[in-house]
Amino acid sequence: MDFENVLSILKNDLDDVEGLISKNLGSSVPLLSDIGYYLSGGRGKRIRPILVLLSSKINGYEGIRSIIYSTVVELIHMATLLHDDVVDGAEKRRGSVSVNSKWGNQASILVGDYLFAKSFSLMAEDKDNKIIDSISRTVVKMAEGEVMQLAGSYKITEDEKTYMEIINRKTASLMSSCCKIGAILGNNGRKEERSLLSFGLDIGMAFQLVDDALDYVAKEDKLGKSLCKDLKEGNITLPLIHLYRTVNGTDKKRIKDIVESDNIIEKDQIGLIIDMIMKYGTIDYTMGIAKKYVETAKEKMNIFSDSKYLKALLTVADYIVERKF
Amino acid sequence: MDFENVLSILKNDLDDVEGLISKNLGSSVPLLSDIGYYLSGGRGKRIRPILVLLSSKINGYEGIRSIIYSTVVELIHMATLLHDDVVDGAEKRRGSVSVNSKWGNQASILVGDYLFAKSFSLMAEDKDNKIIDSISRTVVKMAEGEVMQLAGSYKITEDEKTYMEIINRKTASLMSSCCKIGAILGNNGRKEERSLLSFGLDIGMAFQLVDDALDYVAKEDKLGKSLCKDLKEGNITLPLIHLYRTVNGTDKKRIKDIVESDNIIEKDQIGLIIDMIMKYGTIDYTMGIAKKYVETAKEKMNIFSDSKYLKALLTVADYIVERKF
Repeated sequence: MDFENVLSILKNDLDDVEGLISKNLGSSVPLLSDIGYYLSGGRGKRIRPILVLLSSKINGYEGIRSIIYSTVVELIHMATLLHDDVVDGAEKRRGSVSVNSKWGNQASILVGDYLFAKSFSLMAEDKDNKIIDSISRTVVKMAEGEVMQLAGSYKITEDEKTYMEIINRKTASLMSSCCKIGAILGNNGRKEERSLLSFGLDIGMAFQLVDDALDYVAKEDKLGKSLCKDLKEGNITLPLIHLYRTVNGTDKKRIKDIVESDNIIEKDQIGLIIDMIMKYGTIDYTMGIAKKYVETAKEKMNIFSDSKYLKALLTVADYIVERKF
Repeated sequence: MDFENVLSILKNDLDDVEGLISKNLGSSVPLLSDIGYYLSGGRGKRIRPILVLLSSKINGYEGIRSIIYSTVVELIHMATLLHDDVVDGAEKRRGSVSVNSKWGNQASILVGDYLFAKSFSLMAEDKDNKIIDSISRTVVKMAEGEVMQLAGSYKITEDEKTYMEIINRKTASLMSSCCKIGAILGNNGRKEERSLLSFGLDIGMAFQLVDDALDYVAKEDKLGKSLCKDLKEGNITLPLIHLYRTVNGTDKKRIKDIVESDNIIEKDQIGLIIDMIMKYGTIDYTMGIAKKYVETAKEKMNIFSDSKYLKALLTVADYIVERKF
């Protein structure tokens, strides 16, 4: 099974999710509905809805509530992207001009708030306190992760632990919640819930590690955003942390000077860093950790009986480290 | 009874609210706790917690949950202020340097998100679906109001209706929810709930009308933010709308040119507009509408039996139009 098969197995559900996302992006306020329409066009990979749907299905849940929560998590994800793009000053997102470039930072901030509020409003209608509690705590963590990242920006470090903590909060926590929701909807018991929570956390870690590796090596046209974005924005990710730890004193100083300089990083400086990253195998190092996370994650799914949905979920885990963009 | 008496009647409760706000502004993430500490220092008027507390008390509710929801609504309010200050590029807030000036827009956006999430997390712990539903819908409305305001900025208009719609959503809806929460906590019935919902909406409208009037006439040092902020930021409020509708063709063109110009508004242009606003009585007009809202609001409280808490709530309503900052 490959990722395309997963998409075709879930086609009807994902269509329903798209419908509900579009409905929630609509508003009687014209500027909001314009931006909402634009956002629904620039479709992401919908990894988070896929996680909600598949974890629901392996727990025997097939009803409408998995569509609702798929929409909830995707709206939250979209809201964070809108705010992140303002924070990062990003010009592109998913291959298109970002909302902040097209409508301005002000609109992006407010539309992000609107999407957050919409997601909570959708949850409030479904009245599942366990899920509301889980998602609220997750959104707190995500904001903390983003603030930690901001606090550490433009400061080169050898500290892998803080980086892991940041990606745990800003990315893995939501994917973990997505998987947990499936277990809650299926209502199968604590063991299933814990396993999926942990599975989601691991593949979430892998997802962000791969993202951070791809930022240095992907083809720009496939990635849909500019290359070495993290380096340019002072976001210190694992490839750079590993490199900094690995190189000798002269190169250490060179890297520090480039990263911590007040000036915009120049093309040849980026080239220098990419050359070093290739030479010292830091992409392999990063991808190696990601792969280990995925392997550990998959083992935790042993408690579920075999089915096409379980296969699909394991395929998603593999896709996370195999994707090229 | 005056507003100071209200504060002293509620002293113990408000101290508890401050404690819970501080607790929720704390975080293991240093940058978050620094900003949290700064925010708890720059104390606002705490009108929203006061509304929750008093509406709870006139409905016979005296427990801890009114402290929790007072904190929830104040955290939401603080989150919107952080985001508004970024949207407006505000340099001052409550007499101090704004968070966006001190820590940057990025931190303000993310800390705002954090406070939103915290408020929902607090609500999730209390598990009252009716309140979660009401607050979520309110936060959606608030975001819509802010987007409507942004969409209409730097465009002079005679359209009072859209302005009323904007302040209804961005300000009155939350005050309305505050009062409704009190009725829900007291669990006294639909009539009490509807009356308080409507009371809160009316005084919320009055509150924003007075804010918008004060922006043109208050003493800058008392207001804690710079004067004619709305005019400078292209936020078209009732005093300006009424003025534009009232003046003759030549002055109309003059106002339009000033408001819609791409250049920063100059001191003498602001002086010109303030002179006209004084001459045509648009502040009296605005304050007149605010006063009517407060009168209507107070009448709706007839269904409650007399008590010091009811007197206090009516005093808050009066204070809203009497305050000078």
